[in-house]
Amino acid sequence: MKWCTRIIRLHTKHENDMVDITNQVMKIVRDSNVKNGLACIFVKGSTGAVTTIEYEPGLKQDLPDALERIAPKNVYYKHHETWHDDNGHSHVRASILGCSLTLPIVNGTIPLGTWQQIVFLELDTRSRNREIFVQILGEEE
Amino acid sequence: MKWCTRIIRLHTKHENDMVDITNQVMKIVRDSNVKNGLACIFVKGSTGAVTTIEYEPGLKQDLPDALERIAPKNVYYKHHETWHDDNGHSHVRASILGCSLTLPIVNGTIPLGTWQQIVFLELDTRSRNREIFVQILGEEE
Amino acid sequence: MKWCTRIIRLHTKHENDMVDITNQVMKIVRDSNVKNGLACIFVKGSTGAVTTIEYEPGLKQDLPDALERIAPKNVYYKHHETWHDDNGHSHVRASILGCSLTLPIVNGTIPLGTWQQIVFLELDTRSRNREIFVQILGEEE
Repeated sequence: MKWCTRIIRLHTKHENDMVDITNQVMKIVRDSNVKNGLACIFVKGSTGAVTTIEYEPGLKQDLPDALERIAPKNVYYKHHETWHDDNGHSHVRASILGCSLTLPIVNGTIPLGTWQQIVFLELDTRSRNREIFVQILGEEE
Repeated sequence: MKWCTRIIRLHTKHENDMVDITNQVMKIVRDSNVKNGLACIFVKGSTGAVTTIEYEPGLKQDLPDALERIAPKNVYYKHHETWHDDNGHSHVRASILGCSLTLPIVNGTIPLGTWQQIVFLELDTRSRNREIFVQILGEEE
Repeated sequence: MKWCTRIIRLHTKHENDMVDITNQVMKIVRDSNVKNGLACIFVKGSTGAVTTIEYEPGLKQDLPDALERIAPKNVYYKHHETWHDDNGHSHVRASILGCSLTLPIVNGTIPLGTWQQIVFLELDTRSRNREIFVQILGEEE
């Protein structure tokens, strides 16, 4: 069995910045030489998330709009009492969307749909430097 | 180490069609001879999702009702500008519910609860042919 | 390749009881001697969930508040017709938040952020005994 760990480093620009990391993940899969196995994509930190979506300008706004319905910015968050912080909604959205995504590696690739991209979504209220771990486990044949 | 890839092919009938795939996944696990490891269940495409739920007629309606609160059908989606499409809410719901579910294989089975089934949920606005990958990784002993 | 299965047993006290299981998961990873691989954390049952969050008293209330927006307690659930039950909202919340979380093991640890804890969230309407499976797969070197 083979494993491989790589870190994708991002500098996000603002809240709700959605970054397409598909090509970076696919390159890590190719370089690993793993032909069949699993790829786990994990966001270190509690105010960012990974998911898949059709990466186009419309949905880049529609997904944050839905998260605003789940955890609106302008309601009261008890989190702000603890730290005098402003990002209670960021934490709640991240916990619901999820910090981790595990995908199959089949014949050396991840069998995504044509309109299905892997994205990181910045949920914090400001620009951040982010570390996304890609952990690969599988066989070379 | 052993790995095994199988594809479950479904024809969904309509939006919010919920399909219980537990038996198919369990058969794939049995046939793989993997006794201890992981099973990754992955939906190819950006308008379907996998999760677990108690598969009974009530919840088949209650889960879509909740998704309607997160991403209502009749609000404005910027996605529709891009493609003159009608399924912005489908994409948003799929990204939040998730395209992938990884479960443990323990002693040759997935230790689900009695009222916990693995389901595919059609989120697109019409009948679709679906491919669900089941990727198994683990040991035969 | 090495694998290891452990069960974390919890007694939750009430609905929305959030339990930090980070230390227990980390101990299982250490004891497994797996240095690089994956850890899958899976809740048996359909009314509990696992996710990551900054474990502090504020967010322990803010996350359930958001789930109340997605699946309010006091709306009608068709699930109640099936079983004359009171926990339709619990099932719906659990399906959206998710029963399973897969994390990377890198150099013998899970590279969580400083303010990122692994939590079990009780979504049922009463105290429950819970089994959370931790399935580890990877290499000892």
